[in-house]
Amino acid sequence: MTYPPSNQRFAEDIKQSFAQQSIMGLIGAELSLTEPGIVEITLPYRADLAQQNGYLHAGIVTTIADSAAGYAAYSLMPAGAEVLSVEFKVNLLRPAQGKSFLARAEVIKPGRTLTVARADVFGIVESRDRVLIATMLATIICLQK
Amino acid sequence: MTYPPSNQRFAEDIKQSFAQQSIMGLIGAELSLTEPGIVEITLPYRADLAQQNGYLHAGIVTTIADSAAGYAAYSLMPAGAEVLSVEFKVNLLRPAQGKSFLARAEVIKPGRTLTVARADVFGIVESRDRVLIATMLATIICLQK
Amino acid sequence: MTYPPSNQRFAEDIKQSFAQQSIMGLIGAELSLTEPGIVEITLPYRADLAQQNGYLHAGIVTTIADSAAGYAAYSLMPAGAEVLSVEFKVNLLRPAQGKSFLARAEVIKPGRTLTVARADVFGIVESRDRVLIATMLATIICLQK
Amino acid sequence: MTYPPSNQRFAEDIKQSFAQQSIMGLIGAELSLTEPGIVEITLPYRADLAQQNGYLHAGIVTTIADSAAGYAAYSLMPAGAEVLSVEFKVNLLRPAQGKSFLARAEVIKPGRTLTVARADVFGIVESRDRVLIATMLATIICLQK
Repeated sequence: MTYPPSNQRFAEDIKQSFAQQSIMGLIGAELSLTEPGIVEITLPYRADLAQQNGYLHAGIVTTIADSAAGYAAYSLMPAGAEVLSVEFKVNLLRPAQGKSFLARAEVIKPGRTLTVARADVFGIVESRDRVLIATMLATIICLQK
Repeated sequence: MTYPPSNQRFAEDIKQSFAQQSIMGLIGAELSLTEPGIVEITLPYRADLAQQNGYLHAGIVTTIADSAAGYAAYSLMPAGAEVLSVEFKVNLLRPAQGKSFLARAEVIKPGRTLTVARADVFGIVESRDRVLIATMLATIICLQK
Repeated sequence: MTYPPSNQRFAEDIKQSFAQQSIMGLIGAELSLTEPGIVEITLPYRADLAQQNGYLHAGIVTTIADSAAGYAAYSLMPAGAEVLSVEFKVNLLRPAQGKSFLARAEVIKPGRTLTVARADVFGIVESRDRVLIATMLATIICLQK
Repeated sequence: MTYPPSNQRFAEDIKQSFAQQSIMGLIGAELSLTEPGIVEITLPYRADLAQQNGYLHAGIVTTIADSAAGYAAYSLMPAGAEVLSVEFKVNLLRPAQGKSFLARAEVIKPGRTLTVARADVFGIVESRDRVLIATMLATIICLQK
């Protein structure tokens, strides 16, 4: 499904907001794609982001999935809106292994108040091989200022 | 509900596993309580853990809630077991503000294979006042080696 | 937590709305408690509400939990509001066995637009013994007419 | 994604189990597709399945989504296995309107113990038009006898 953006500057606005998410700098995440209703964030693996077995911690998997889902929703909101996560569910499907990780979020149902998005997180092993390691289903709210 | 632990060394085992979760060191989280079926983790606020409004990022709220829930489940598992999060849902109830944060997890239903736990995350403002900012409902699996 | 209702006729309004939920009549569910922020629904077991093992079907467990959660939220909304479920998560903790079932919902966080409620579903076996068989975490929206 | 079934009689086994789900008879649901990893259930609208506005009750939306997800998982399990829902989350995306409803479930990640499936529920209005009204993300467990 594709949706027309109402805010023509959505890509710049997302970039600016992402730059203000200080946690993204701390963990080394980068915004890698912004389209109407679709956002991707990439994260190189680092040993200081791990749980007890050396896999990426589920909370960090969630961190990039949540920001991707929030910005996918934000891309379809009117200019000047504020975006907040209401809730999400994450299924951890496989060990979070990889040289890097990609969270790809897509809006399933946009709305004036509530937007529902799905985000898949992939581990990138060698070359181009992607392994689906987690999937998120999220509800996001648009606060009009 | 209180449950008897089957692993008498559960507190030491949790401490040891927590020390191996490198992400806890990166964000500055500490294990503050380990009882049978109950685990608490505390996290002082830091400006580099924030989302765009300066609140603690939902993914970091999830990081401490997930580890607390996993270890609450682990505290009731037999010695030598391995613990993994299957899935969780988080409702973000209020802006994640505070000088520090407390994730308190409790097992709702222990099981040989699957355990269900709830984790509440509180923002600690001044003195002792706790504000509930998020609640997690999580499923955790016990892998016997 | 207790919350003051803004609609003094909330109990009557819930009763009236419940009577319009035709599915409640089909399955034989009854409203058994309405307090500010708390609603209970009871359902006697019937052989035609079952899944393949004779247990109450998870969808019927969800049906009474969802209505209880929705009305618990509704009890704190202004008069004339409309209530809709946004989403819910249900953990099925034990086989849904019992002579009857009780769904008890409580508001965790009321809000002008969104309310979060928890609902526990118990199987009532003999006498007064309650066994927790499922727990729901739900988000409900208030639509002002 | 397509997955090879290990139980060659999976379609018959699903049919037989579905016939034992007495709730399906009560609400008038029918099994309409069984493929490896994919199951569809259809439900004609009836006035006695409704919530207070006349829409299909969210619990009945969940009932067909849960059975579809469970059987999609079951289709990939070994012969003689038993299937139970562990937990699910449902997002209600639009009013549950339609002459009939279709729940289509697909396995996202099969597993020896746990399987994760997604189920979409569509309202069928006139002719062939499908409107997505809800989406479920579910965890299912395989119990080996």
